[in-house]
Amino acid sequence: MMYFILFQVLSHGVRFMSSVPSFKASDLHIDFCPPEQLKSKPAVKDLVFGRNFTDHMLKIYYNDQSGWGKPRITPLQDLRLHPAAKVLHYAVELFEGMKAFRGVDDEIRLFRPGKNMERMNRTAARSSLPTFDSEELIKLLKKIISIDQEWVPHTESSSLYIRPTMIGTEPTLGVQRPTEALLFVILCPVGPYFASGFKPVSLLADPQYVRAWPGGVGMMKMGSNYGPTLEIQKQAEARSLHQVLWLFGPEHRITEVGAMNIMVFLDKGNGERELVTPPLDGLILPGVTRDSILSLARQWKEFTVSERDITMAEIVQAKSEGKLLEMFGAGTAAVVTPVGEIHYEGQVIKIPTMEHENPLTQRFFDAIKDIQYGRVKSEWTVPIE
Amino acid sequence: MMYFILFQVLSHGVRFMSSVPSFKASDLHIDFCPPEQLKSKPAVKDLVFGRNFTDHMLKIYYNDQSGWGKPRITPLQDLRLHPAAKVLHYAVELFEGMKAFRGVDDEIRLFRPGKNMERMNRTAARSSLPTFDSEELIKLLKKIISIDQEWVPHTESSSLYIRPTMIGTEPTLGVQRPTEALLFVILCPVGPYFASGFKPVSLLADPQYVRAWPGGVGMMKMGSNYGPTLEIQKQAEARSLHQVLWLFGPEHRITEVGAMNIMVFLDKGNGERELVTPPLDGLILPGVTRDSILSLARQWKEFTVSERDITMAEIVQAKSEGKLLEMFGAGTAAVVTPVGEIHYEGQVIKIPTMEHENPLTQRFFDAIKDIQYGRVKSEWTVPIE
Repeated sequence: MMYFILFQVLSHGVRFMSSVPSFKASDLHIDFCPPEQLKSKPAVKDLVFGRNFTDHMLKIYYNDQSGWGKPRITPLQDLRLHPAAKVLHYAVELFEGMKAFRGVDDEIRLFRPGKNMERMNRTAARSSLPTFDSEELIKLLKKIISIDQEWVPHTESSSLYIRPTMIGTEPTLGVQRPTEALLFVILCPVGPYFASGFKPVSLLADPQYVRAWPGGVGMMKMGSNYGPTLEIQKQAEARSLHQVLWLFGPEHRITEVGAMNIMVFLDKGNGERELVTPPLDGLILPGVTRDSILSLARQWKEFTVSERDITMAEIVQAKSEGKLLEMFGAGTAAVVTPVGEIHYEGQVIKIPTMEHENPLTQRFFDAIKDIQYGRVKSEWTVPIE
Repeated sequence: MMYFILFQVLSHGVRFMSSVPSFKASDLHIDFCPPEQLKSKPAVKDLVFGRNFTDHMLKIYYNDQSGWGKPRITPLQDLRLHPAAKVLHYAVELFEGMKAFRGVDDEIRLFRPGKNMERMNRTAARSSLPTFDSEELIKLLKKIISIDQEWVPHTESSSLYIRPTMIGTEPTLGVQRPTEALLFVILCPVGPYFASGFKPVSLLADPQYVRAWPGGVGMMKMGSNYGPTLEIQKQAEARSLHQVLWLFGPEHRITEVGAMNIMVFLDKGNGERELVTPPLDGLILPGVTRDSILSLARQWKEFTVSERDITMAEIVQAKSEGKLLEMFGAGTAAVVTPVGEIHYEGQVIKIPTMEHENPLTQRFFDAIKDIQYGRVKSEWTVPIE
């Protein structure tokens, strides 16, 4: 049973073809965590993003000789890696970010998991890591969430974050594609990504640092897009700012916020308004929340929806004319996060995102949460059982 | 005893200051490998780069609370990492490549280790990983090489490759600097980097893929510079080419070869000749072998030595005029490797690198090996005891 996957990489028109037979959910083996080792669940108010993990994990090994192995759910445990494993030297690694939500009807749902699986396979092909059948991994995700279901918080302020990861494990130092890999999934109950909750965040926009480039991998969810950003994130935090707004080019186009895509809501005069987000030109991650917001906005038909370049000059000008209405980030971890300030070339650009009546940012946040928590029925949600 | 380190990052003029007290070689603890576990050494002819490791490794743990721990030499063993360790998700990782050589006098020498340590600290600062006292790590390298000295091959065709590595180990998923890290060193006896030995290699120069860019980290030895290149390296190998020559910009400037810096030797007419290598403009790794070759060439005073941009158009033109004399890569793993062909936009540019009498490429290779293997005394070599 060969499973064929054909990828069209977004920005280059290069085809990557992979004909790896996928692992199968029906081969799953489960080693349950012994009852005496089950951890106690932290209080929702104590949840910090990505710090608490559930009792189990999923692991699937791959090697060129025998292909994908059988999926295993095991107690959460350390990985044993040879110190020459390629992931530790050459960043042969990718990840995804997804969430499971406990609905108002107590049903647990995933949000558009197929979108994440599609991106994960696309990133795997670009990373010279093996691809797989998305539906098989979704079945396995449902199973492990079902096993750890008591870790899905019983509140709408929280959810279960799902972190599928793939790493190259071959223990050799040649700068070449790995012949061995490991796909694993860990789960963690999370509150809001920003400790400040649904409050406007401040962004550092420093044009001297560039996150991604044409001909690079900015549109892929590879670890290598993140490592070089941590020092700049640290500089932002040292100035009490939350995140970095990455700029590109001499005209200082805005691109993304590392952990989020970025959206700008503008008054165009004459009662016209425009929601702008940078296009999928290869420099930014094609976010699932970004796509969902664009879909909702296009259904609402209340304002123009544009995927187009937008520069810092345009933002500064709109601000000076009172036409910069709102700005927000969109991402799985951050959901919809209002932006209150951009620190840019010695200026602080204040954005009145949450200062209007009925802000668009809040409406998107509510609309997406209504779907995620099952208040509104939608094809975007997939129940785990 | 605070150890202060001040860095000037090459291309940006941004200062990173670190005041982490370094680990100390005098705190070293050694767990020797039990005699019955010592591995047999592979025959020199069977050595493939980066596949055979010695009996011991060096490990030094770091965390924000207690700083650097005590260095430990232990038997080579798997690392145990939490599956949320930041290195596995966000490529918080860096490495160095160095070699120890068994000289013609049976003395074992390092080659310019201070240069690698300086670059490793610079990369650590840019990676938001902790810095350390270079001299202390050099002492520890000498010690572990001394313990595993029988692994330093008794032949000039081989050497002991040294791989210092640092990874961020904090087990949390926030996209933030790690508060925990591990520095480790593994060693492997190696033959020539290319299985073909000292024979001209073929390069793929495909302008649609870009390795590094202004405002990025191309000059740092971070894992994130390598992960995105593996798929392109695979494409090169699928065409029976050895490596990728990375181009930059609309004018297709040549930059580096991923595992090597690149050097071009040109006939300028009127008996003038020029050795050209791209400048340290932030796009390329500041290689130790590159620096050594430039130093030797400037001592020899036989031709012009230029660190300047050079485009594919200039190379194609020089070739058509019979003025493209030689081209070679320079790097610790590859030492000096002649280039025989570049595959570029449907053309195959043949380079007669080794077809002259007394090629410059061979002279550099011999001059560097004479120093490394102790035939010529030099301040560049540091005996291990």
